[in-house]
Amino acid sequence: MTNLSPLQIERLKYEPKLPSSLANGISHLVSVEGSATQSVANQDEISALFRNTYGKPTVTFKTSSESHSCEARNVGVILSGGQAPGGHNVIAGLYDALKQANPLNKLYGFLGGPSGIIEGKYVEFDDKFIDAYRNTGGFDIIGSGRTKLETEEQFQSSWEVCKKLGISAVVIIGGDDSNTNAALLAEWFVAHNAGIQVIGCPKTIDGDLKNEQIEISFGFDTATKTYAELIGNIERDANSAKKYWHFVKIMGRSASHVALEAALQTQPNITLISEEVEQKRMSLSSIIDYISDIVVRRSNNGKNFGIAVIPEGLIEFVPELKSMIANLNDIMSTLESNSAYTNGTDADKIAIIENTLSSENSSVFKSLPALIKSQLLMDRDPHGNVQVSKIETEKLLISMVEERLASLKKEGKYSGKFSTQSHFFGYEGRCAFPSNFDADYCYSLGFNAFALINFGLTGYLSSVRNLTAPATEWIAGGVPLTMMMNMERRHGEMKPVIKKALVELDGPVFKKLETNREDWAMNDRYLFPGAIQYFGPSSVCDITTVTLALEKSLVKA
Amino acid sequence: MTNLSPLQIERLKYEPKLPSSLANGISHLVSVEGSATQSVANQDEISALFRNTYGKPTVTFKTSSESHSCEARNVGVILSGGQAPGGHNVIAGLYDALKQANPLNKLYGFLGGPSGIIEGKYVEFDDKFIDAYRNTGGFDIIGSGRTKLETEEQFQSSWEVCKKLGISAVVIIGGDDSNTNAALLAEWFVAHNAGIQVIGCPKTIDGDLKNEQIEISFGFDTATKTYAELIGNIERDANSAKKYWHFVKIMGRSASHVALEAALQTQPNITLISEEVEQKRMSLSSIIDYISDIVVRRSNNGKNFGIAVIPEGLIEFVPELKSMIANLNDIMSTLESNSAYTNGTDADKIAIIENTLSSENSSVFKSLPALIKSQLLMDRDPHGNVQVSKIETEKLLISMVEERLASLKKEGKYSGKFSTQSHFFGYEGRCAFPSNFDADYCYSLGFNAFALINFGLTGYLSSVRNLTAPATEWIAGGVPLTMMMNMERRHGEMKPVIKKALVELDGPVFKKLETNREDWAMNDRYLFPGAIQYFGPSSVCDITTVTLALEKSLVKA
Repeated sequence: MTNLSPLQIERLKYEPKLPSSLANGISHLVSVEGSATQSVANQDEISALFRNTYGKPTVTFKTSSESHSCEARNVGVILSGGQAPGGHNVIAGLYDALKQANPLNKLYGFLGGPSGIIEGKYVEFDDKFIDAYRNTGGFDIIGSGRTKLETEEQFQSSWEVCKKLGISAVVIIGGDDSNTNAALLAEWFVAHNAGIQVIGCPKTIDGDLKNEQIEISFGFDTATKTYAELIGNIERDANSAKKYWHFVKIMGRSASHVALEAALQTQPNITLISEEVEQKRMSLSSIIDYISDIVVRRSNNGKNFGIAVIPEGLIEFVPELKSMIANLNDIMSTLESNSAYTNGTDADKIAIIENTLSSENSSVFKSLPALIKSQLLMDRDPHGNVQVSKIETEKLLISMVEERLASLKKEGKYSGKFSTQSHFFGYEGRCAFPSNFDADYCYSLGFNAFALINFGLTGYLSSVRNLTAPATEWIAGGVPLTMMMNMERRHGEMKPVIKKALVELDGPVFKKLETNREDWAMNDRYLFPGAIQYFGPSSVCDITTVTLALEKSLVKA
Repeated sequence: MTNLSPLQIERLKYEPKLPSSLANGISHLVSVEGSATQSVANQDEISALFRNTYGKPTVTFKTSSESHSCEARNVGVILSGGQAPGGHNVIAGLYDALKQANPLNKLYGFLGGPSGIIEGKYVEFDDKFIDAYRNTGGFDIIGSGRTKLETEEQFQSSWEVCKKLGISAVVIIGGDDSNTNAALLAEWFVAHNAGIQVIGCPKTIDGDLKNEQIEISFGFDTATKTYAELIGNIERDANSAKKYWHFVKIMGRSASHVALEAALQTQPNITLISEEVEQKRMSLSSIIDYISDIVVRRSNNGKNFGIAVIPEGLIEFVPELKSMIANLNDIMSTLESNSAYTNGTDADKIAIIENTLSSENSSVFKSLPALIKSQLLMDRDPHGNVQVSKIETEKLLISMVEERLASLKKEGKYSGKFSTQSHFFGYEGRCAFPSNFDADYCYSLGFNAFALINFGLTGYLSSVRNLTAPATEWIAGGVPLTMMMNMERRHGEMKPVIKKALVELDGPVFKKLETNREDWAMNDRYLFPGAIQYFGPSSVCDITTVTLALEKSLVKA
C-alpha cells in the first residue's frame, strides 16, 4: 500500500478508546466471576455435548493496583464469514494487548478464513504490518472465508498446525455459526487435552448475533450508517425531483435488523419487515395491497414519489412464496433429468414448471413477473436450490405494484404516475472505514479477547457492554459461548447452535416504526443522516445506532 | 422540518468561505472589465442572434475602500434540471448578498423549476426559511423541473409574472441547456426593454459544463466523492472476499467525467471511457475483448475478482450499437402500427425486429443477451425512442463477458471463476450534503450572482475561479453566456447552444488513467477515499477533485 487516500492517512492515526478497566493495562486486570451459567434452552442436550466447557461463569474485568507478569505465548486469529467494518481493529486490539502483556508474545493470522488454520496458511504480525490496517475497513489484512470448522478431521488438522506454531489460543472473529464452531473447537481441544484455548468475537453487519449478553455485533453500526447515508440522499432526491418511487433493498440475510435500523435513521414512506410478514402471515398480495394503498393515497395528495425500504430476506418470509420455492427446489432435480425440460426454451421450461408444481404453488408461480420467473429458473446454488439472495425482490414488488395500479386505474380509483428506480445496498457498507463506535468497540473486543486468554479461559465470547455510555464506562468481560445456545434442526439433524436474534415485534425498536409508520407514509418525515463523520462534534461522530438506544431505554424504563 | 439528523444540525451552523473580494461586502465592490468577448465558434450566427448581449466584456470584482448604496430591488431564482449538491447554498449566498446590499431587497423562489416563473408559482424567502437549508443537499427548498424556457409565449408569461412581483433580475441555476435558455431570456428581455436582468449559475454533477471560463460546475465534487466512497468500499470488499467481479455503472449522461474522476479517486482494475470508445471506434466485441483479457490474466494470477467502472452513456458511443439503436428507433413507429407485432409475445416481437432491422444492425441485435433485448423492447420515451439510460449496460457487459469466457474455457484458455455483482450509482450522490468545497463554491456563486446583478449586468454567468487555491484567493466575476456558445444541430435545426465539454483524450486527466491503466488492471492499487468529511483535518475536508488538480497543474506546467 504505497498509495493512501487522505482519509486513510488520517484514520491510521486515530487512537481507539478502551473501557477504563482495560486501559490500565493487561497486567493490572482482575477477573470477577459471576455465577454458573446455563444455555438459553435445551440445557440437558447442550451440557451433554459440552461436558468440559458448559456451565462456566460469566466474568468481568476490573483493575487492580497490583501487577502480574505474563509468560510468553503464541496466539492465532481467524476472520470468518462476510466482511464487517472493524475486523482489522479487533486484530489490532488483540495484538496490542498481547505485546503489552509480553513483548515475546506472537500473533499469527490464519489466511483466507477458517481454512487457514486447517491448511496451515498463516502470517506473523509485526508492528508495521498491523499499523497499516488500524481503523480501516475490510478483512483484507488476512482475508476471510466461509469454510465451516466443524469436523473431527478439521479439528485434528487445526491442532497439528497450532502445535507446529506453538499456539496456545485461537481467536475466531465471526457470526453466530462461526461462534458455534468456536464453541465446538474449544470443547474438542479441552476434551483432547490440547492445551489450546478458543475465544470468539461477535461480528456481523446483519445484527442478528445479539442477546442478553451481546448488545450489538460489530460492523452493524457502520454498515447501517452507510446504508442510511444513501437512503437519506435518495430521499432528498425524491423530495426534490418529485418524480420517482425508489425501492431500496438492504442486505441483512434473514433478519430485518439492518433494514429496520436504516429506516429508523431515515424515516422512509414504506418499510417492510420480514418478521412481521411471517408472523402476521401476510401474503404477497397483501404486501402489494399495503404498498399500492400508500402509492395511491400519496398520489391523491399530489405526491407521485416516495421511498420503500425492503429487507433482503423478505421473500423467504412470505408464506406462499416460501412454499412455492420449497416445491420448486423439490421438483428441480427431477426436471433436470428430463430432456424436454433441459432442452426446452425458457418458455418451455416455465410451462413444464407450471404443470409440475402443486396447483397452489403453480398459481403463485404464474402470478410472478417474467423477470422473476427467469431468475427462479437460472440461478441455482451448488445444491441445486434457488438462490433467494439473487432474486431481485425490489423489482418483483415494483412490477406487481405496477400491475395493481394499472387495474386500479381502469376502475377509476387511481390517476397518478408510478415511475420507479430500484437499488440494492449491501457490498457498499460491509467494508467502510469503521465509525468511531465500531473502531473503539472492535479494538476493545480484541484487547479484551487477549485478557480472556490471559486468564486461561476457553469457550468464551469476548464481551463489551454498556455501549451507549462513553467508552471509558464500557464493561469488559467474557460470556461462555454455550450460554447462548439452543438445539435447532440443521440439514435434518438437531444441532447445538447459537440462537439467532430476529426482530421482535413487541420490542421497542419495531414499535417505534409501527407507531410512526402511517405518519411517515403520508407526510414526508425524511431524515438525512449524511456520510459517516470521523472527526468533529461528538453529537455527530460518537453516536451509535437507534436500535441500541431504543433497546437500552426500554431496559432503563 | 421538526426532526433533523445530528449532521444536519451541525451543518446548518457551517459558515461558507467567500473569496476575499466578496467577503468585504457588496457595497465595497468594484467591477473591472476585461476586453470584449466572442463566442467559441460561429461568431456571425451567434452575434446575429444575440444583438443586445453579444460581445460584452468579462468582469472581475475587486474591493474598494469606498462604499456605495444600493436601491431596493426584487430578484427571482430558479433551480433547473437534475439535482446537484450545493444548490441550496447558491440561493443562500444570493439571499445574503441581496439582504446585505439593502434589507428591503426581496428574493423570490420560483417553484418546481422554470415552470414556476411561467405559471407564477413562487415563494418569498426570509431568514428562517433560508436558514433551514444552509449547507444541505437537494433542491427541495423550491423544487426543480425540466421545462425548457425557450418559446416566445414562455418569455412573455415570465415577463408578466416578474412585473407583478416587481422583479428586475432572475438567477437561473442550471446546466448547459438551462444556461443557453438563460442567455436567450436575457437577450429577449433587453430586446423588449423589460428592464429585467438574467444571470446564470453553472450546475451539474455531470461535469460537462466546463471551459476556459468555468473550472468546474458545482455538485461534481460532492457527487464524485460519494460515488468514490462507494467504489472504494466495494474494492475493499472485493479484495477481502476475493470472490466477485463488481461492475459499477456511474451516472453522468453522455460525458465520462464522473466515471473518470471516480476512477482516479479509487483506481479500479477497469475503467471504460465513452469518449475513447467513440474516438477509437471500439466495437462492442473489442470492449468485451479488453475486459475478458483482464479477467483472464488476473485469474491466471489467482485473482478471480476485480472492479470495473462504466460510464452511464457508454452504449451510445459504441458505433455499432449507436447505429442499431438509431435503426430500431426508425422502425419502431411502423412496428407499433403492425398488429402482428403489437399482439405478439416477446419472442414474436424479437423475431419481427430481427427481420426488420438492416442486416448489419440485425446481427448486432441478435448478439445481445435476452435481458437487454427485452429492455430495448420495453422502455420507450414519450417520442417512442429507446431510453438508453434505462438499459443496464453493466449487465450487458457481464453477460457478454460470461459468454466470451465460456468459449475461452472450452478452448482451454481460461480456467477461472467469474462471479459478478452489478451496481448503478447516480441518485445516491446528487443530493448529498455538499462537501466543504461545494458549500463554499456554491455560496460564492450565489453571492457573486447578486454582485453581477448589482452592477446592472445581464446575460452573464456567475464565475468563481482559481478554485484549487484557498477560498480567500478565489477570483469572482462574470462571463457573458454567449462567449461559451456555438451552433449545433438540435431536432434537425441549427441552434445556438453552450458547448458541452467531453473528456479530452489528450488532456492530463485521461492521460493519468491511460498511463496507469495496465498497472491498476493487474496489481491492486485500490484507493479507499471513504465518506465525505465535513470536519477535521484540512487535507481530508478541503480537497477538491483530482480532475481539477490535474487540469490546473497542466495549466501551470
